[in-house]
Amino acid sequence: MILERFKVPQKDQVLVSEGALRRTVTQIFEKLGVSADDAADAADVLTMTDLRGVETHGVSNMLRAYVRDYRAGKLDPRPGWRIVRESPGTAVIDAERRLGIIVGPKAMRLAIDKARTVGVGVVTVYNSGHFGAIGHFAMQAAQQNMVGVCFTGAGLSVVPTFAAKPMLGTNPIAVAAPARREAPMLFDAATSAIAGNKIRLAIRLGSPLLPGWVTDKEGNPITEEKPVFDRDEYHQLPLGGTREQGSHKGYGFALMAEVLSTVLAGALPTMLAPGGGSKNHFAAYNIEAFTDLEQFKDTMDRMLETLRTAPPAPGQERVLYPGLSEAEELQKRRAKGIPLHKEVLQWFGECTRELGIAPLASIS
Amino acid sequence: MILERFKVPQKDQVLVSEGALRRTVTQIFEKLGVSADDAADAADVLTMTDLRGVETHGVSNMLRAYVRDYRAGKLDPRPGWRIVRESPGTAVIDAERRLGIIVGPKAMRLAIDKARTVGVGVVTVYNSGHFGAIGHFAMQAAQQNMVGVCFTGAGLSVVPTFAAKPMLGTNPIAVAAPARREAPMLFDAATSAIAGNKIRLAIRLGSPLLPGWVTDKEGNPITEEKPVFDRDEYHQLPLGGTREQGSHKGYGFALMAEVLSTVLAGALPTMLAPGGGSKNHFAAYNIEAFTDLEQFKDTMDRMLETLRTAPPAPGQERVLYPGLSEAEELQKRRAKGIPLHKEVLQWFGECTRELGIAPLASIS
Repeated sequence: MILERFKVPQKDQVLVSEGALRRTVTQIFEKLGVSADDAADAADVLTMTDLRGVETHGVSNMLRAYVRDYRAGKLDPRPGWRIVRESPGTAVIDAERRLGIIVGPKAMRLAIDKARTVGVGVVTVYNSGHFGAIGHFAMQAAQQNMVGVCFTGAGLSVVPTFAAKPMLGTNPIAVAAPARREAPMLFDAATSAIAGNKIRLAIRLGSPLLPGWVTDKEGNPITEEKPVFDRDEYHQLPLGGTREQGSHKGYGFALMAEVLSTVLAGALPTMLAPGGGSKNHFAAYNIEAFTDLEQFKDTMDRMLETLRTAPPAPGQERVLYPGLSEAEELQKRRAKGIPLHKEVLQWFGECTRELGIAPLASIS
Repeated sequence: MILERFKVPQKDQVLVSEGALRRTVTQIFEKLGVSADDAADAADVLTMTDLRGVETHGVSNMLRAYVRDYRAGKLDPRPGWRIVRESPGTAVIDAERRLGIIVGPKAMRLAIDKARTVGVGVVTVYNSGHFGAIGHFAMQAAQQNMVGVCFTGAGLSVVPTFAAKPMLGTNPIAVAAPARREAPMLFDAATSAIAGNKIRLAIRLGSPLLPGWVTDKEGNPITEEKPVFDRDEYHQLPLGGTREQGSHKGYGFALMAEVLSTVLAGALPTMLAPGGGSKNHFAAYNIEAFTDLEQFKDTMDRMLETLRTAPPAPGQERVLYPGLSEAEELQKRRAKGIPLHKEVLQWFGECTRELGIAPLASIS
């Protein structure tokens, strides 16, 4: 459900195929010292994210940061992690500075295994690099006939209601649940009014920021539309924007994500330990432990179809459910290619040249 | 964190003590045929909710509805429920039309028991009456050194983003986590811009509704301040208000609550089966299965204290965390009494007279 203003303008688009992107991204990770299995996992997260149209968390914004962090030694390419505590339904993992999009798929697999045994599995992870779009991990569970839930605590960009400075990250929450004929439900949202990456994307695309999205440097919510040039001039507001519009709820959801990921992993929130990396919570609910799987999918189908076909409000085209436009985008992009900004292709060109691998092929 | 405009005006206040309210409410439930244990559980939920200052869900709005439903035979006073499916970490309960504030404490106790055994416990409940303020059940877990999480699916008052009519309930989400010196974190929020009961409360108090809280009957978001006289003239907006302000996130959180409570209980959402009662999800995370309990509480203390003592934005008095004002209110009301609207006292008078029990004593 990305806003029109954040899409890559047609004139700047270069199309690449799923296969080409997957191949090049895998090769980049391998060249940086990541094992073949881990590189394939990481490339899967990024490629699927771009296929779903979640451009803020695909290769355009994130891959260059990952490459930079591997080269700077801030990320360790060797396979590894350590389970520091475990019970039949739970585990806590020290990611030992591995990239989140590599640790994430493994952590959710472990949560799924536990859910198969005791009905529900929860795995928390600390000390890791960036996790990308966490909806991807929730979807892993949905593909195994489970409900998947993820929380992230990371960063220091969101100003709590009434506060003067940022004290929490954008702390996203994601949930995915399988349906049968309908697209799976896939909800993945920052608990801030706007995802952090959207500000960087707005700068690249020259789009303005809307009222209720950010504060000035003193914590005052900005309530008029503004073009944005410098990321550092603004802090982010929680979902809701102002107290009267419910920002205390967005703030509460951010704190919920912080407690269920960071504190429940035995780690410190960024406000107490800056630079501590990303903390995550992966939960899998085995649907068959709760109810009949086919009945669950029937109900999901009926509910999602009812939403999708509901009469829209005056002036609106249609009603969406979370995951619908992602599934439509996935189908379209698999058929026609993934649109990347020409500037991103330029970066790929430099990166593959430096690493000595074949350039990313575009669809001419 | 109730807005000033929703508090009972001083001139209309009558103060009652915790003990008196607990006693009278217990007696009312017993007179309606509820067992002594169940009546005590229900009175505990309501009294604690009023002590925490969550007046929208205390005796003022809800008790008369409960009494009416017992008398109309819509609620069954006999003890009972049925576990329809169970695994080491999960259970699903058919509440057999018992009141939610009676089933809730039992369901969370079961989740806590399971979390003691396998690290995490999740119990879903369907076919029950109203659940009151679900933060109370999350707090049960916090008092047992666990993190408590609750989701509710109930009602049909919230208009999904772009839709013309209400299709979801206000579907609240609650989380509670223990600290040591600081008040426990207690977050309990409707996923709508405003709690349903706040509209009724606004009518009683003659307060206006703010922009971004409601739609008109066609689903158009109302974007100016409005006095409200008739609950039926408006539908509710999801948290965020409009799409540009993030209403798709509030809508997504409502759907998350619906899937994790209703669909994961094998039940149908209200949009498919009106009148199906309340559906709930109770989760308990055993902190010791994840990390050292004392370290968890230390981190909570440091995090919550950092928020509480953070410099406020210009013009703001202080920064709150979820649960702080509830804990302050609890202390104040335990010492000085619970302020009820004189009109509520009048209802108590009629109710106790009709049931033949002693009137609710007020603090003169």
